[in-house]
Amino acid sequence: MALDFEQAFTERTPRIVNAAKLHRSSARKKANAFLVEGENSVDAAVSTGAATDIFVTERAAEKFAEIVTAAGYMDVYVHPITDRAANSLSDTQTTSGLFAVCKPVLWSAGKILNGKPKFLAVPVETSEPGNAGTLIRTSDAMGADGVIFAGETVDPLGSKVARASAGSLFHIPTARDTNVKDVLGKLRAANLQILATAPQGDATLDEVDLTKPTAWLFGNEAHGLSPELLDAADIRVKIPLRGRAESLNLATAASICLYESAKAQNR
Amino acid sequence: MALDFEQAFTERTPRIVNAAKLHRSSARKKANAFLVEGENSVDAAVSTGAATDIFVTERAAEKFAEIVTAAGYMDVYVHPITDRAANSLSDTQTTSGLFAVCKPVLWSAGKILNGKPKFLAVPVETSEPGNAGTLIRTSDAMGADGVIFAGETVDPLGSKVARASAGSLFHIPTARDTNVKDVLGKLRAANLQILATAPQGDATLDEVDLTKPTAWLFGNEAHGLSPELLDAADIRVKIPLRGRAESLNLATAASICLYESAKAQNR
Repeated sequence: MALDFEQAFTERTPRIVNAAKLHRSSARKKANAFLVEGENSVDAAVSTGAATDIFVTERAAEKFAEIVTAAGYMDVYVHPITDRAANSLSDTQTTSGLFAVCKPVLWSAGKILNGKPKFLAVPVETSEPGNAGTLIRTSDAMGADGVIFAGETVDPLGSKVARASAGSLFHIPTARDTNVKDVLGKLRAANLQILATAPQGDATLDEVDLTKPTAWLFGNEAHGLSPELLDAADIRVKIPLRGRAESLNLATAASICLYESAKAQNR
Repeated sequence: MALDFEQAFTERTPRIVNAAKLHRSSARKKANAFLVEGENSVDAAVSTGAATDIFVTERAAEKFAEIVTAAGYMDVYVHPITDRAANSLSDTQTTSGLFAVCKPVLWSAGKILNGKPKFLAVPVETSEPGNAGTLIRTSDAMGADGVIFAGETVDPLGSKVARASAGSLFHIPTARDTNVKDVLGKLRAANLQILATAPQGDATLDEVDLTKPTAWLFGNEAHGLSPELLDAADIRVKIPLRGRAESLNLATAASICLYESAKAQNR
C-alpha cells in the first residue's frame, strides 16, 4: 500500500487531536469509539473487523507492513502520521507508531450468558488496567467463554487494558455491567455455579467440582470481594498458600483458577 | 514511640538525598543498601531484621503505628520526615510516607542449592520489575524453596520489584546470577530436573512428573527462552492454550507452573 508521508497528519490535525482524546472514558462514550496501540492490538482489531481507521508512522508502516496491507484489504482507512502525532496519541514511553480507532467491542452480560457458557471470569471492581487486560488475555488462553467485569471496574476499552490483553479483547466476549447484584442474578439464572476466590475459603481449589458450568468471581486488588458477595457465592474457594506470603495478586490467583477450570472441563 | 516532627528530615537533608539515590542500581551497590516503600515491604523488612533505618511522615506514623513501634523494639532507627521528603523518596504517584533502608537480602545461587530444594523458580532475563516481584511473591506463596534470577535480569533489590513482591522478597531466598550457563550447571549438579516453559513443548504441564525436585526456567517477557536454553532443559513444557490467545504473560504462566509443582509435591 502506497502511503504519502508528505501529507502525514500532525499532532495538530483535528482527527489526531480527537483520537488522542479517546484516552478519556468520557470521550470514548461520546465518540462511540476507542483507541488501541501496538502490534498485537491493532492486528487483532483489523482482523476481527473492529478497526475503522489506522494511524501509522513511516517507520511503523515498514515494520508492520503486513498489518497495514491487511487493513487495506479490510477496507480500513490507513492514515500516515508524523512521529510527533504518534507521541501525542501514545500513552507509552516509546511509541510503536501504530494505532487503530475501533468500534466498541463490548458485549452485554446477557448476550454472553445466552451462549450457554461452560466457564466465565467475573472480575469485580477491578481497578488496575494491567490486571484487567491480563485477566482478558488469560481467560482467552484458557478457553473461557467470556469475561464479565462487574461493578465499578476500570473501562475495558481503555488503551492500557487493550495492551495488556495482547489482542484478546477482540477475541473473547467481554462485557461490563456496573450492577453487581444484577450480574449475580443473571449468572444464577444461567445455572452457573458461582465460585468466589477467598483467602478464608470453605474448600481448596482441588476439592471443587470444576466440571460443572462455572462463573469465577475475582475481587478487587486491594480489598478483595465484599462480605455480601462472598456470602452470595455457592462456594468460597481458597488456593492453598504454603510459604509466608499472605495472598496472591489478582491476576496470579485468577490464572490458577482458570487453568484448573480449563483442565477439568477438557478432561 | 514519640517522634519529633518539628525536627523532621526534609528533601534536602543529606540522609534523604542519599536514600533517594538508592533507586539507582549503581548507588545500591556502592552503599550496600536498598530502599523499600509501603506497608507490606517495610513490615517484612522490619520483622526479618533487614531494615536499618525507617523514614516516616507524620500521617504514616499514625497509620502504620504498629510497624513503627515494632521498628523501635528491633533497634531500627526511626526518622520523622516531611511530606516533601516522602515525595522525593517515592517512585509512586501517591506515596505511602513509609520507607525502610535495608541491608542487602540476596542469597547466592549456591547457598540456595545447598539447602536441597524441592522446587525453585529460575526466571531468565526478566526485564520488567512488576513481573520479577510477582514471581517472587507467587514463588513464596506456593512454598518454593527459592528464586534464582539468571542472566541480565532486573535488579531484585529495586523498589518496584520489592513492592510487587508484597514483602516476599524478605521471606523467600532470592538470588541473582548473571551467568546463565553457570546457573544451569549448578541446578544440574543439585540433581534438579530442569523444566523450561515453551509454547512448543514436548509435553503438556499435566504430563510431567512434578513430584521430582524441579527447577522451572521462565523466559524473558518479549522473547522467551533462547534455543540454547530450551535445548539444555530436560523437558520443554507447554501449558495447553485453548482460545485464540497466542501466549500467556510471564507471571501468569509461572504461577500456573508453580501451583502445579506445589500441588504435586504436597499431595
